Amino acid sequence: MSQKIAVIGLGSMGMGAALSLHRARFAVAGCDLSPDLRARFIEAGGSASESAIEAAAGASGVVVMVVNAAQTEAVLFGENGAAAVMAKGGVILSCATMSPDDARRLANLAESQGLLYLDAPISGGSIKAAAGTITVMASGSQAAFAAARPVLLAIAETVYELGDAAGLGAAYKIVNQLLAGVHIAAACEAMTFASKLGLDLDSVYKVITASAGNSWMFENRVPHILDNDYSPRSAIDIFTKDLGIIAAMGQKENFPLPVASTALQLFLATAAAGMGRDDDASVARMIAQVTGLTLPQRKTT
Amino acid sequence: MSQKIAVIGLGSMGMGAALSLHRARFAVAGCDLSPDLRARFIEAGGSASESAIEAAAGASGVVVMVVNAAQTEAVLFGENGAAAVMAKGGVILSCATMSPDDARRLANLAESQGLLYLDAPISGGSIKAAAGTITVMASGSQAAFAAARPVLLAIAETVYELGDAAGLGAAYKIVNQLLAGVHIAAACEAMTFASKLGLDLDSVYKVITASAGNSWMFENRVPHILDNDYSPRSAIDIFTKDLGIIAAMGQKENFPLPVASTALQLFLATAAAGMGRDDDASVARMIAQVTGLTLPQRKTT
Repeated sequence: MSQKIAVIGLGSMGMGAALSLHRARFAVAGCDLSPDLRARFIEAGGSASESAIEAAAGASGVVVMVVNAAQTEAVLFGENGAAAVMAKGGVILSCATMSPDDARRLANLAESQGLLYLDAPISGGSIKAAAGTITVMASGSQAAFAAARPVLLAIAETVYELGDAAGLGAAYKIVNQLLAGVHIAAACEAMTFASKLGLDLDSVYKVITASAGNSWMFENRVPHILDNDYSPRSAIDIFTKDLGIIAAMGQKENFPLPVASTALQLFLATAAAGMGRDDDASVARMIAQVTGLTLPQRKTT
Repeated sequence: MSQKIAVIGLGSMGMGAALSLHRARFAVAGCDLSPDLRARFIEAGGSASESAIEAAAGASGVVVMVVNAAQTEAVLFGENGAAAVMAKGGVILSCATMSPDDARRLANLAESQGLLYLDAPISGGSIKAAAGTITVMASGSQAAFAAARPVLLAIAETVYELGDAAGLGAAYKIVNQLLAGVHIAAACEAMTFASKLGLDLDSVYKVITASAGNSWMFENRVPHILDNDYSPRSAIDIFTKDLGIIAAMGQKENFPLPVASTALQLFLATAAAGMGRDDDASVARMIAQVTGLTLPQRKTT
């Protein structure tokens, strides 16, 4: 009989992981509050339930792809949580972006219940998730890595092994998110300023992506502005959350983070303007609204 | 007889352009206040003088690679300036980063004296300058482009033709510098924060350069931090200048630039700490000094 793996959270990343595990012939039990997402996964050949305790019963691995530390804690250790019903010695792969302190705390909780815990934040977006080619920034005990390896092989193309304790994977992810968030905010500030200066925005994109001002995020997100397409590939709310974690970490460590904190304010302003669930390139729309600029209108398709 | 071209400013970019023009068999007259730089160019087969009026006498083209608009104006239109002695109908290639307003003002001055003016800010660094493969973000009249083309062919690999009036090239360069400056500041903030979190900085570099947090500047400048090598490839003072121009433009246009302005403050703090002439990755050293962090020590060579 094939090994049972639960995937908690069937959003775009979790669905991709669940489908990749199903393709790799695991017995995959998905879990999500959304009936639509559960139905989609059942149609693809998996099983799915609303409660974590049902999905995780007897599972040797539980992949948690929810939004943050609080949700991760709730689905694992809350009422009807997964941890209590997993197979003894099973491994938790905790994939949400959270502070290193939260990752260590959840790992301690898991280990105190005889479970293995891999601090395993992910990156790559929904297309790579669907293809089973995401990147995982992982840390944990050798036993946790060993137990998680078949799952990682199914869902990821690149697994960075970043240390032998929970918290390290989380910290690398946080540093990545700091840069990613700043680069999105900078891209939006630069493109709106270019518009204010009367430049042709398609030409700006062409010149900058070939110049020293380029970033992965500039190259990836600016086309959303050029196409006037703010349907969420990744939402503003992700970065109010992640840059919020980063700002709180800086506060706790007495470590000034002026650039990241300024970027956070731009994401908060965009959420405050009602665009929290829209694509994170909406920072440009917020700046345009405030300053009375007209950005490109939707291309006819 | 070969066409005479003057290159005013024999710093790393100007020297590279002058040598590239010399290789392309122009008669090149360099101009710099530094006797050492003049001697280097004479040794390489060019001629050189201290005054712009001598270098530019009868030149059909003058390439100005000085620090800013004020210096550009001085060497062209000040006492003993180049403009008065150039060949009639000659072309000025103005390469310093400056505001679009300054570029338009200098173009008007040149045109009022019967000269052509190409707004031609450059990027690419000293290695590409030496190889004749820099990028030029150019705008100007068709006549200016036509007259400048042989010079551009000798010094540049990529020439963006960005419009038919001075000011456009300058504006594209400004947008690039906004992003470049923010990305350097963000890279330094992220690497020092990673150090504060106890991460292995070589691993951070490896993970981030393969992730969505990457930028051209992160990839290029972070090795200076890892090697503890702050000899200036590009100095802090360049970005206090360029982000200062950007902040002034935002002020004049009533356009908020919170991310760029925050980055400017970090460069100013680094200059205030005595590192203005050091490599721009010194923002990380400034943050480390303030926060009591120890960054990597120089590798033995």
